[in-house]
Amino acid sequence: MSAAVGDAEREARLGLSCVVEPGSLEVARAVAEHGAIAVWAGLRGGSGALARRASALDLTAVARQAVDAGARFVIPGDAEWPRGLDDLGAVSTRAITPAELGGLPLGIWLRGPASVAARSVAIVGSRASTAYGEGVAADLAADLAEAGVAVISGGAYGIDAAAHRGALAGGGATVAVLACGVDVAYPQGNASLLAAIAAEHLVLSELAPGSHPTRVRFLARNRLIAAATSAVVVVEAAHRSGARNTASWARALGRPLLAVPGPITSAGSVTPNQLIRDHVAEAVTGAADVLEIIGRAGEDLAPELPPDAPRPVDALPADLLGLFEALPGRGGIAAGDLALRLARELPRVIIDLGRLEEAGLALQLPDGRWKIRPGGAG
Amino acid sequence: MSAAVGDAEREARLGLSCVVEPGSLEVARAVAEHGAIAVWAGLRGGSGALARRASALDLTAVARQAVDAGARFVIPGDAEWPRGLDDLGAVSTRAITPAELGGLPLGIWLRGPASVAARSVAIVGSRASTAYGEGVAADLAADLAEAGVAVISGGAYGIDAAAHRGALAGGGATVAVLACGVDVAYPQGNASLLAAIAAEHLVLSELAPGSHPTRVRFLARNRLIAAATSAVVVVEAAHRSGARNTASWARALGRPLLAVPGPITSAGSVTPNQLIRDHVAEAVTGAADVLEIIGRAGEDLAPELPPDAPRPVDALPADLLGLFEALPGRGGIAAGDLALRLARELPRVIIDLGRLEEAGLALQLPDGRWKIRPGGAG
Repeated sequence: MSAAVGDAEREARLGLSCVVEPGSLEVARAVAEHGAIAVWAGLRGGSGALARRASALDLTAVARQAVDAGARFVIPGDAEWPRGLDDLGAVSTRAITPAELGGLPLGIWLRGPASVAARSVAIVGSRASTAYGEGVAADLAADLAEAGVAVISGGAYGIDAAAHRGALAGGGATVAVLACGVDVAYPQGNASLLAAIAAEHLVLSELAPGSHPTRVRFLARNRLIAAATSAVVVVEAAHRSGARNTASWARALGRPLLAVPGPITSAGSVTPNQLIRDHVAEAVTGAADVLEIIGRAGEDLAPELPPDAPRPVDALPADLLGLFEALPGRGGIAAGDLALRLARELPRVIIDLGRLEEAGLALQLPDGRWKIRPGGAG
Repeated sequence: MSAAVGDAEREARLGLSCVVEPGSLEVARAVAEHGAIAVWAGLRGGSGALARRASALDLTAVARQAVDAGARFVIPGDAEWPRGLDDLGAVSTRAITPAELGGLPLGIWLRGPASVAARSVAIVGSRASTAYGEGVAADLAADLAEAGVAVISGGAYGIDAAAHRGALAGGGATVAVLACGVDVAYPQGNASLLAAIAAEHLVLSELAPGSHPTRVRFLARNRLIAAATSAVVVVEAAHRSGARNTASWARALGRPLLAVPGPITSAGSVTPNQLIRDHVAEAVTGAADVLEIIGRAGEDLAPELPPDAPRPVDALPADLLGLFEALPGRGGIAAGDLALRLARELPRVIIDLGRLEEAGLALQLPDGRWKIRPGGAG
C-alpha cells in the first residue's frame, strides 16, 4: 500500500475512492480540473455528510483491510492501470442513462496475480440465463481464452459465471469486475468461482474492500467492463437488462459491440436480436467472428466459407447441371443410357460428359461408364 | 384455354413452355428479341431433339389436361400476370449460380381461385427444419396473413409447409410456387396441403400440368418466388440450402432480403445467422419487423420500444436513483427514515422526494410517508 507511505496523490485518491460513490462525474471533473489532492483537502475541510465521512476516514484501517484482503490500489499512471480506462475521462455520457454517472475512476482495486490483458473481450448478459446462453457464453469464453484473449465479465450469476468458467476451462485469463469490494463474495453462490479467479487471475473493483453492491454501483461498474476491454459481446439479455447499459458504454467508448443471435422466441435473446436488427451491434456466431472483429485472426480456427462461395456445381450451365444430376454416385451409367434418359442427342451427351470431367465433376470408369467424381461436388 | 382458340402469341408461349426447360435464359432472350411466335415457329421448323419434341407436341391434349387439372395459362400482359415477374426480364444473373438460369417466364400456370396479391412475402427455408424454425415460420405467416399480406412459399416439407399452414391458420392468402405441374402432388406428403391451397388460394408454376420436378426446375422456380413477392424471409436453412439460391435472387431483384436469427448452435440457423452477420439480410424478430420493412405499418401490432428508449428511472441522476431505490413498493417510509438510511441530510431528502414526485416516480401517502408510484418505474 503505497498510499500509507506518504504519496499524497495516491492518498488523496484512496481517500476519495473510500467516501465518494463510484462513477460520480462531478467528482471526476473536479479531480480532472483541480487535482485529487486539492479535491480531497477541500472535501475534508468542508461541511456536510460527505465531509464528515472524509474526516472520519481512517486510512490506516483501510490499508490494513486491503492487506488482509490481498488487495492493491492502483491509480492512473501506475504500470497496472488498464490503459482502456483512460477513455472514460473524455467520453460523453449524454447517450447513456443515467447521464450523470461516468468519468475516470479515482483508482481501482486489484486482487489476484494477473493484470488486465492488453487484448480482452467482455462477455456480458443476464443473470436469468438459459442453457443456450450459458453454453454459448462458456464456449465463446473457452475459445477466446484458448486464442490468448482474456475474458472479462461481472462475476454475476448466469452469463457472467458461464463466461468466467468457460475461460478457466479453456486455460485462459479471466477478470471479474465487481460492483463491490474485491474481497466481497457477491453473489454468495459464486464465492468459490470468485475465489478461484482471485487466486489465479484478477478481480477488479472501483470500490474499497468490504464495500457492498448497490444498483448505482452496478451501473458505475458497467462502464469499467466496457472501457477495460477490446470489445463487448452481449450473449443473452432480456428487454431490460444491465447488459444494455454496458452495451451503451461500449458504443460511447467506441468499443466494438457484438451480440450473439438467438431464438426470437426466447426472452433472453430479445436484447441481442434487437441490437443486431437495429444495426447497433454486429452479429457474431462464434469466437472466430469475435477474433476477426478485434483484429486478431485466429490462425488455428478454420476459416469459414464465404456465404456465397459458388460450388463448382453451382457454376454449371443448366444443361450440364441436368447431366450432372443424372450421374450416379455409385456404380456407373453408359453415355447412351444418359442420352435416352435425358432425351438428348448422344454426341451432345458425350461432349458434355467431357466438360464435366474437365470440371472435375465426372469420372469415367475403366468400363467406359460414368459416375460423379467423389468429392467433386463438395 | 385461350391458347386453344387461335391466339398465336398465347399458343406460341404455351408451346414453348411445354418443350423448353424453365429458366432457359437463351430462350427468354430469343423471345425478348424476336417474339414468342417467331421463336416457336423457328423451333418447330428446326432439327434436333427439341424441334422433334416441339413438332410432336399436341396442344389440344395439353389444353385438355389443363382443363382436367383446373389450370389456367397466363402470359405477360394478362390481368393475372404477377407484375413482379417482369423484373426477371431485366435482372443480371451474374451473381447467381447457375448464371445461365433466369429470364422472364414464357408463361405461368395457375390453379386455384386467387391471384398473386400485390403485397406478399415469401417465407422460405429448409426441408430439414427444426421445431423452432417451423414454429417461427407458422407464427410469422399467421401474423402476416392476419395483417393482409399473402404468404408465398414453395410447397415443400419443413419451413415451406409450416408457412403455408400458418397463413391458412391465420385466415389469410397463401400461394404455393412449385417446381412441377400445378396438378402434381409433390412432395406426396403435402398432397392434402397443396389440395387445400389449390381449392382456396393459388398454386403457381412455370411448368405444364403433369410435369415432374428436377433440381434445375427447383432452381428456376426459386426465381419466381423471389420475383413475385415484396420481400423474402429466410427462416431456417443449413449452410447449403435452396433458400440461399432464393436469397440470391431476392438480392439481384432488389427485393428486401430478411432473415430470422436463431441459435448459433443450430445447423438450421447457420444460413440466416450468416446472412445477418454479413449484412446481406436484415434481421427480423417478428411480423412487425417484416411489415415495417415492406412499408406497411401494422396498425394493430403494438409498436416495440426503441432499443435504448430511456425509462424515466434510467434518466435519473445517481443521487436521485439511490433515493428512488430506497423507496418501498408497498407500505411507505418517512422522509426522516430515508435520510437516516441513506446518510443524507433531511432537507436534501425532502427536496429530492419532491423531484421524484414531479417525475412521476414517487407518491406521498395521506399519512406523509413515501412509496414508489405504481407504474412509474415501467
